[in-house]
Amino acid sequence: MSHLFRVTKTCAATGARVGALTTAHGSVQTPVFMPVGSQGTVKALTPEDLRSLGVGMVLSNAYHLYLRPGTDIITRLGGLHGFMSWDGPLVTDSGGFQVFSLGHLRRVSDEGALFRSHIDGSEHFLTPELAIRIQEELGADIIMVLDECPPYGESLDVIRRAMNRSHLWAERCRRAHGEQSQALFGIVHGGTSPELRRQSVEVVTGMDFVGYAIGGLSLGEPKELTYSVLGETLPLLPAERPRYLMGVGSPEDLVECVAHGVDMFDSALPTRLARNGALFSEHRRLSITNARFRQQRDPVDPTCDCYTCRHFSAAYLHHLFKTRELLAYRLATIHNVRFTVRLMERIRQSILDGGFEDFRKAFLERYKPTDADVRAEQKQKWLDSRGAGTSPD
Amino acid sequence: MSHLFRVTKTCAATGARVGALTTAHGSVQTPVFMPVGSQGTVKALTPEDLRSLGVGMVLSNAYHLYLRPGTDIITRLGGLHGFMSWDGPLVTDSGGFQVFSLGHLRRVSDEGALFRSHIDGSEHFLTPELAIRIQEELGADIIMVLDECPPYGESLDVIRRAMNRSHLWAERCRRAHGEQSQALFGIVHGGTSPELRRQSVEVVTGMDFVGYAIGGLSLGEPKELTYSVLGETLPLLPAERPRYLMGVGSPEDLVECVAHGVDMFDSALPTRLARNGALFSEHRRLSITNARFRQQRDPVDPTCDCYTCRHFSAAYLHHLFKTRELLAYRLATIHNVRFTVRLMERIRQSILDGGFEDFRKAFLERYKPTDADVRAEQKQKWLDSRGAGTSPD
Repeated sequence: MSHLFRVTKTCAATGARVGALTTAHGSVQTPVFMPVGSQGTVKALTPEDLRSLGVGMVLSNAYHLYLRPGTDIITRLGGLHGFMSWDGPLVTDSGGFQVFSLGHLRRVSDEGALFRSHIDGSEHFLTPELAIRIQEELGADIIMVLDECPPYGESLDVIRRAMNRSHLWAERCRRAHGEQSQALFGIVHGGTSPELRRQSVEVVTGMDFVGYAIGGLSLGEPKELTYSVLGETLPLLPAERPRYLMGVGSPEDLVECVAHGVDMFDSALPTRLARNGALFSEHRRLSITNARFRQQRDPVDPTCDCYTCRHFSAAYLHHLFKTRELLAYRLATIHNVRFTVRLMERIRQSILDGGFEDFRKAFLERYKPTDADVRAEQKQKWLDSRGAGTSPD
Repeated sequence: MSHLFRVTKTCAATGARVGALTTAHGSVQTPVFMPVGSQGTVKALTPEDLRSLGVGMVLSNAYHLYLRPGTDIITRLGGLHGFMSWDGPLVTDSGGFQVFSLGHLRRVSDEGALFRSHIDGSEHFLTPELAIRIQEELGADIIMVLDECPPYGESLDVIRRAMNRSHLWAERCRRAHGEQSQALFGIVHGGTSPELRRQSVEVVTGMDFVGYAIGGLSLGEPKELTYSVLGETLPLLPAERPRYLMGVGSPEDLVECVAHGVDMFDSALPTRLARNGALFSEHRRLSITNARFRQQRDPVDPTCDCYTCRHFSAAYLHHLFKTRELLAYRLATIHNVRFTVRLMERIRQSILDGGFEDFRKAFLERYKPTDADVRAEQKQKWLDSRGAGTSPD
């Protein structure tokens, strides 16, 4: 496990670094972005698509797969790699975030979390030991400790209690984890309090995990707060271990968080936005259903090398969205995932060339992030639109 | 235009034949099956997918594209080939079938058909001349005359009147058609009456079209009636011209109708069934959501060479349908289209090898067609489920 991660180059001007993450299913270069496939599929894409987009590593979700189809079935079908036919590196989240965010939590104690299935209402008691067993059965290369995830805006007391419980659970996960070919990551909590974050880093790094995730961010807090918490937390983590920021995936956040020293990201944002017709470009997020694309012969992003932009006009994509054709979702997803993967490639190259700070400045000057109100509204629209378990990511 | 079609081999025991159909966008071997992409996309598939599945020719629809996005936009974007990024042979239907089947017909006279758009309720008057102009603007390789399509079960009088009107319209289409790089096909009508069919063949072949379609079948009549009408009609058509049976696409029908001498088929059935989780196999149509697939490690059809069957268990596909994941529709569509295309490949090979009659017998003994009542029920379910213009095929 000591060779899981190796930093190969660090940026002189920022905390950014390039490294290699090695697993039983191959290596990826970091900083790396992982698309999310909660139910064992990155929505609308095949594993072949993922490969051709340059995706190196995928995140899936223990909570969703445990409930449906059930870990017994996945185990019998060759584990999650075999089940979804993805032979590259795979990460599973523990299910903690879903239990606490899907609003079906019934009771939480130091022992574990009692929740109702969002599918059939059945009750389940998730303990650290069960979270580990599920993830061992799924067989991902990197697995996560169970953590308690309070929403943004809770009082310091609530945040502290959840943090302490997450520490207890992390230790129990560490002890329960037998499968040494899987790398178990700890998760640092503490909300937006620098003092709690410092405490959490101390406790969690004391357990000597092979990698560390930053939990409890990207939950709706202002971006400046995300960045400042990262700025306080990341320098306290051991430099030789991988750092994984959970739930971050907008272009501007990826660039900024790499600058703070993050090595791994996951987010459903690029794929979810794609299905809603919001496509990334070098300058901003575009809404393809906008009337101005009705006759546009150029692709959505003329600088993009993805299959969609190489073969189809923005007008065609506009038509597919207007007619709600299935191909719309696939072509848009291909574009947003490729945009994000290529952004990471450019980030890594600029770090290797010593030009990351210039790249970062140029990108952030050029790219206009979506307005915070618009983002909040879009997120609410998505939350409202989710049917019973049909669209977990 | 005289080299559009060439018969290369005929079956000694049946009317089956192998041929080559040559267009400005390439050649295809016949008998050929065309998947349907009403709105300029074969649902859930890219042109790259179509190529890799062995699809040689695609059918699209003048009615749908005329209403949305409009032929002006498609013309500006390089015609339908450029718009949908398909550089192979392309056929467009005239719109007649849609005007008469989508239930928004307002008034029909010898002059043309007044209908309401199924999208916005706007009124349009479709004449033979307009049907030709639209199809010339779309630029498909093969285009169809405008015809009146009464439903199955109408009286002989209604069928006769519609047939006579279709003849008038066919002649006007022939005169209106200027674009000689496009092949214009006539359509034989006459319902299930051998006498009317004979009359229609005489009139339509008298207009000397480069190819002939059989319209007014596959509208819900018993299969035996379809076959007997074909048996009465096809021998009357000139052997050296291509014969296109519109709307046929079930495995058993393809085999039987090839035996009668049909060269071209189109149908939305394989793709529509796929999206409803009904998958073809060597023995029957399977419903992938059936509980017996929950743990099946084998693919849906172990003899199939498609991407889906080579990479995924039936259990995974079952999971994708149960969770309504977008990937379900694509993987199932890939399978059904490949199954159908491969069936045509095997049909052609058996004709070339002189073994078609054996192939036909073996296939029809092995393959159990779906019960007529189940088919009718499924079709009604599909008709009921169609939203306003969201799922025309």
